[in-house]
Amino acid sequence: MFASTLELPRSLDEVPTPALLVDLDALDANIAKMTSYCRDQKRGLRPHGKTHKCPEIAKRLIRAGAVGTCAAKLSEAEVFAREGVRGILVTTAAIGRLKVARAVALASRQPDTIFSVDDAANVREISEAAAAMKGKALTVNVAIDLYIGNRTGIRPGEPALELARVISKLKNVKLVGLQAYAGHASHKQGFEARAQLSRDFMGQAVETRRLLERSGIACPMLTGGSTGTYNIDTKIDGTTEMQPGSFLFMDVDYSQIGGADGNAVYRDFQTSLTAITTVVSTPSGADVVVDGGFKAFSTDKPFPPEAIRVWRDGAPRPFGGVTFSWGGDEHGKLNMAQATSPLKVGDRVEFVVPHCDPTVNLHDRLYAHRGSRVEAVWPISARGMSQ
Amino acid sequence: MFASTLELPRSLDEVPTPALLVDLDALDANIAKMTSYCRDQKRGLRPHGKTHKCPEIAKRLIRAGAVGTCAAKLSEAEVFAREGVRGILVTTAAIGRLKVARAVALASRQPDTIFSVDDAANVREISEAAAAMKGKALTVNVAIDLYIGNRTGIRPGEPALELARVISKLKNVKLVGLQAYAGHASHKQGFEARAQLSRDFMGQAVETRRLLERSGIACPMLTGGSTGTYNIDTKIDGTTEMQPGSFLFMDVDYSQIGGADGNAVYRDFQTSLTAITTVVSTPSGADVVVDGGFKAFSTDKPFPPEAIRVWRDGAPRPFGGVTFSWGGDEHGKLNMAQATSPLKVGDRVEFVVPHCDPTVNLHDRLYAHRGSRVEAVWPISARGMSQ
Repeated sequence: MFASTLELPRSLDEVPTPALLVDLDALDANIAKMTSYCRDQKRGLRPHGKTHKCPEIAKRLIRAGAVGTCAAKLSEAEVFAREGVRGILVTTAAIGRLKVARAVALASRQPDTIFSVDDAANVREISEAAAAMKGKALTVNVAIDLYIGNRTGIRPGEPALELARVISKLKNVKLVGLQAYAGHASHKQGFEARAQLSRDFMGQAVETRRLLERSGIACPMLTGGSTGTYNIDTKIDGTTEMQPGSFLFMDVDYSQIGGADGNAVYRDFQTSLTAITTVVSTPSGADVVVDGGFKAFSTDKPFPPEAIRVWRDGAPRPFGGVTFSWGGDEHGKLNMAQATSPLKVGDRVEFVVPHCDPTVNLHDRLYAHRGSRVEAVWPISARGMSQ
Repeated sequence: MFASTLELPRSLDEVPTPALLVDLDALDANIAKMTSYCRDQKRGLRPHGKTHKCPEIAKRLIRAGAVGTCAAKLSEAEVFAREGVRGILVTTAAIGRLKVARAVALASRQPDTIFSVDDAANVREISEAAAAMKGKALTVNVAIDLYIGNRTGIRPGEPALELARVISKLKNVKLVGLQAYAGHASHKQGFEARAQLSRDFMGQAVETRRLLERSGIACPMLTGGSTGTYNIDTKIDGTTEMQPGSFLFMDVDYSQIGGADGNAVYRDFQTSLTAITTVVSTPSGADVVVDGGFKAFSTDKPFPPEAIRVWRDGAPRPFGGVTFSWGGDEHGKLNMAQATSPLKVGDRVEFVVPHCDPTVNLHDRLYAHRGSRVEAVWPISARGMSQ
């Protein structure tokens, strides 16, 4: 069976495809750069685990100086906690009686866990469930999730202050700060445009933090930021920690946002994540078929031709003139009309992925390698944990 | 933790969201209709397991009369085999030394397994690996995968005959027939247009089968067909079995292909699969946010407004005037400007999924229900098995 015969392939040649590879040299360089940058800027770093869903990587980040990990959902947080990751911030509210019960159970096991909230009734439920815990008085850490133009949260300013007052009157919850993610800013193309957008929206979060403190409500944390804005948001007075995720791996999408150096390609971090496939059929002269389709790559972003390499003599080589198109759930097609060299059944073709987070979520493991040598196989233990 | 506390929720209210639901009455009606149809048409039915990836459903189909299951990939087949499913046809070739070794090992455990092949070197490798098995003479069943206009396979006619001759000279492989999937025909809109396209392409497979038989090579099986062409391909003289998958669940995409009755909506099978989400934030008057995004739904097909229901008093109700848009990896947004009723945090919203196969592949379990009562939680054991 799969698990027993191929748990640790000696080399990338032996990795069963389609598979995700992570280049350890590039990953470690990205981790070193982000941790030292945040240290220099006197900001905490709590990288977002929704990107990697891999406890091994969360722990590697903590060893390098991260204060913990973010988790997008409660079930993702439960997996990280089970695997020994500490300092978890859950960035989506746990809604409903059963999820609140699970959240409080998690807080009782790991009291440093922080839960995002934006709804007074939900906070009351958490406090009541914490009060009802048998045998110990439990206080659950909460962060107010602010809506700064994107997705979830309560409006900054007065609405957030009102919720903070509700929290401050409840016995079994404790406000530790504000959660503010401006996802629409993170991918804005062009550094200056991105900086302006992020300053506008994070500015609302900073103002809200000041409003709370002026009103006598302690608000020690303001967490936010992304791979696209880490060097913008750390410079905004009043932010306290960053929660980027994609910097670990990078992807086609993030490479196109433009850097602070004015370059159209964003080069602050290296591409460490790739997907490897095998040519499984050559039905026609024009197309060859690889074994990766909708179930191996996320389809929410376009698949660019420049991200393709072919393996020759144990190493990936640039592979020009080839375009990828979907061949359905299980397959991809490579149009070979302009290809610089032919492909045959059994050849291995490697891709930079269009969008790292939802692609990682399709796979069960990461093959961590240096060059062609596989050093470890890391379970993506929180894959599918969207609940 | 998740698995222990919520393994069998009593009702759909207790299912942690986002989650996939399967309506057992609708599923069983679909199974009964397809099995009786194929029986009447004197065709075998080997439904495609890539749709459900769920051994419980594969076994339910076999109990209803199916001859086995198809599997898209070797690792999917290994999971089905491990869970006791027999009669497996693997529809993508197992390429490379290590996958060939696994394929032969699977054949040795379950000798009725059939492997698709389209490459002479690959067939030779399989035969050699089978010959090298210790302690027993093994003959591996193979089907020639024909390229009939879509994805993988060898060209019909002479190229296929040539491969059949290679196979017939090898000692440890046995040709059991032809595999021919015209995926581009399955989703062609309009019954007559679809019928014409499928007849054209399946006709090439039928001709190839006759060519082999005229050349003295036995070719008992011709397997193909889909949910869109089951009532077309069963009527083509020379086909022997069908391999539809989506008829089990149905989805938005398949509902739009048009029926033999001339209706634009394809109503041969009932929608049994839905995804349920929870409203987790109401940041603005116009939008509410649910907890399902790119990681809960496949994004390869559009998300239509007519597929949305809201739960009230323990049952799903039609929910007009609401449109869905993506809120990223973890969230979806419902625009409420024209909504017929408001939504609040904690409300549950159910969706018909745009494309069933890649959506199922994102989830770990199916909640099998009748009305609001959950009867079983079925593991999607082959989820992620794309290797």
